[in-house]
Amino acid sequence: MANNIYIGVDLGGTSIKVGICDENGKLLHQMEGPTESEGGPEVVIKNIANYVREIVASSSYHWDQVAGIGAGITGFLDIKEGIVKLSGNLGWHDVPVKKMLEAHLGKTVKIDNDANVAALGEAWGGAGAGIPNLVCYTLGTGVGGGIIINSQIYVGSTGVAGELGHIAIVPDLEAIVCGCGQMGCLETVSSATGIIRMAKDAVERGDKTSLALVEHIQAKEVFDAAKQGDEVALRIVNRAAFYLGKSMATLAVVLNPQRFILGGGVSKAGEILFAPAREIFKRFTPEPAQEGVDIVPATLGNDAGVIGAAGLNLHR
Amino acid sequence: MANNIYIGVDLGGTSIKVGICDENGKLLHQMEGPTESEGGPEVVIKNIANYVREIVASSSYHWDQVAGIGAGITGFLDIKEGIVKLSGNLGWHDVPVKKMLEAHLGKTVKIDNDANVAALGEAWGGAGAGIPNLVCYTLGTGVGGGIIINSQIYVGSTGVAGELGHIAIVPDLEAIVCGCGQMGCLETVSSATGIIRMAKDAVERGDKTSLALVEHIQAKEVFDAAKQGDEVALRIVNRAAFYLGKSMATLAVVLNPQRFILGGGVSKAGEILFAPAREIFKRFTPEPAQEGVDIVPATLGNDAGVIGAAGLNLHR
Repeated sequence: MANNIYIGVDLGGTSIKVGICDENGKLLHQMEGPTESEGGPEVVIKNIANYVREIVASSSYHWDQVAGIGAGITGFLDIKEGIVKLSGNLGWHDVPVKKMLEAHLGKTVKIDNDANVAALGEAWGGAGAGIPNLVCYTLGTGVGGGIIINSQIYVGSTGVAGELGHIAIVPDLEAIVCGCGQMGCLETVSSATGIIRMAKDAVERGDKTSLALVEHIQAKEVFDAAKQGDEVALRIVNRAAFYLGKSMATLAVVLNPQRFILGGGVSKAGEILFAPAREIFKRFTPEPAQEGVDIVPATLGNDAGVIGAAGLNLHR
Repeated sequence: MANNIYIGVDLGGTSIKVGICDENGKLLHQMEGPTESEGGPEVVIKNIANYVREIVASSSYHWDQVAGIGAGITGFLDIKEGIVKLSGNLGWHDVPVKKMLEAHLGKTVKIDNDANVAALGEAWGGAGAGIPNLVCYTLGTGVGGGIIINSQIYVGSTGVAGELGHIAIVPDLEAIVCGCGQMGCLETVSSATGIIRMAKDAVERGDKTSLALVEHIQAKEVFDAAKQGDEVALRIVNRAAFYLGKSMATLAVVLNPQRFILGGGVSKAGEILFAPAREIFKRFTPEPAQEGVDIVPATLGNDAGVIGAAGLNLHR
C-alpha cells in the first residue's frame, strides 16, 4: 500500500507556503502563492485549497494518500475548534478555518500558532528528530516558544503554554514594560527588538561604540560589532544571552527536556550568542537537570513552519 | 463485577503507611506499621507486603480487586525500573523495590518520589480533583514540586521534572547558595528552612523584632509574628511569598496549568502567605495566562502521599 503523506500550510499575510511531507517529517515538495488577504477569508481559504490540490496533483502522490492537512497561523487561535479568533496581519476575526478548509478538501484539518508549529517542525524533521521531550525558542522580533512532550505539542489548559518570551526573568530594578503589559519579560532583552532597543539606548546616552555610526541598527549589526570586539555591543549580546540561558535553567528543572533548540533570526548570530547562553545555563542548572541536555541551533530555517504544520495530524 | 481498588504505600524511615483507594482517589482504609529499616531491604519489603495483605484482608474487599500497588519513596529513584538508587533515610543503595514487591505480592508495583506522589494525590483525590493540568508545590523543609499533565505525573526526560525548588529565581545580588550547589533557588527563600534562616539573620544583625525573644525559631513563629504585625517577620513572609508568586507566574506562561496547589507545612500559614503570593502572581503573569487560574491550599494533608501512591497505577 502507498505511504501516507502530510500537507503543511504556512499562512502568511502576503504569501501562502504549502508543502508535502513524508511520515518522517521530510519535506518532499513545496510551493508558494499569494494570500490575497484583501479578498477576505473566503478568497484566502479557496486559495489554500487550490494550492493544496495543485501541489498534490503536480507530485507523484495521489489525493488518497493525503492523511491530513495542518496550518500554522499567526494570531489568537482556538486550536481545538480550529478557529482564528483574531489575526492582525490577515485582518481576520472569528474565522472557522478548520471547518471551511475541511468543506473544501474533504480531509482532516488542524491549525496551531506559528511558534508551536515551528517547534514541531524542528522536533519532527529538524534539530530535534528522534528526541521526544524538547523546548524550542524562536528568537525573532519577539521571543516565541514551543514545548514538545512525548513528541506532541503541549498547549496547556487554554492554549497559551510555551509563551517563553513572557517569562518574567529580568529583576525588577532592571526591568522594562513588555508589549504584553507585564514587567521584565524575556522578550524585552533576548528578542531582536530588545537587542535593537538596548543598542539605541547605548548610542543615545553616548556610550563609546561603533554602533553610533550605524544609521538603522538591526540585531545583526549589534552581533557583528560584538564579534569585532566592540565592548558595548558585547555587553548587550551578553545580556541577551544571560537571560536566555537563565530561562533555560528554569525550564530544565521544570520540564527536564533533553534538548533546547534555538531558532529565528537572532539565533543566526551563532557562537557569540550560544557560548554565553550555554555557560549561564550551566551556572544556574543543578547537575542532575543538566545531564545529557544540549542547546543546539534550529536547522530547518523558514521551512520549519510548513513541516511542523504538516506534522499536526501526526503529533497532536 | 466488583470494582477495582488501588493500594498506596507511603514508605518512611520509621513507619510505613498503607491505604486502599477507590478509583476516584477516595481513601477507604489505612493503617500504619513500623519500617524496621535497621533490618535491611529484605525486612522492609516483607513488612510492606504483610501490611498490604493485612489491610486488604481486614477490609470488605477481595485480593482479586487489587488493580495495582504504588509506593512513594524519598530518594533518588529509577522510576521506570522501580529501583531506589539512593535513599538516605532508609540507608538503601540500588534496591529493586518494584521487582521485590511484585515477587511477594503478584501484583503490578510502581514507585515514584514523594513530591510527585503528593502532587498526584492532590490531583486525583484532593484540591485538584477533576483538573487535568495542574502544578503542586510542597513547601516544607525544602520546596518540592509535581507537575500533572492530562491527569498524569510528568517526570521529564530523566525523571527530574517538577523540581520547582530549584528554579533560580532570586536575582544574583540577593542570592545565596542552595543545597543543590546553585545560586538563588526558590528553596533558599520559600521553604521553612529559608524562612528560618532569614529570621535568624534578622535577629543576629539586631533587627527590631519579637523573634529575638524566641529560642528555637520555626517557620510557624515567623508567620505568627507577622500576623501580629511584626514588621521584620512580615518582610520575611512577603519575601517568601514574592518569589513563590513569581515562580508561579513563570510556570503559568510555560505550562499554562489551570490550578496551583500549595501544600506542606509552610502552606498552613494561610492567607498571610497566599494573599501576597496571589498578588505577585497577578503582577507578573500576562492576562491570557491568568484567566481561570487559581491558587489554592492542598486539602489532603499527610494522606496525599498514600493516595497519590495508590494512584500511580491509574495515572502513569
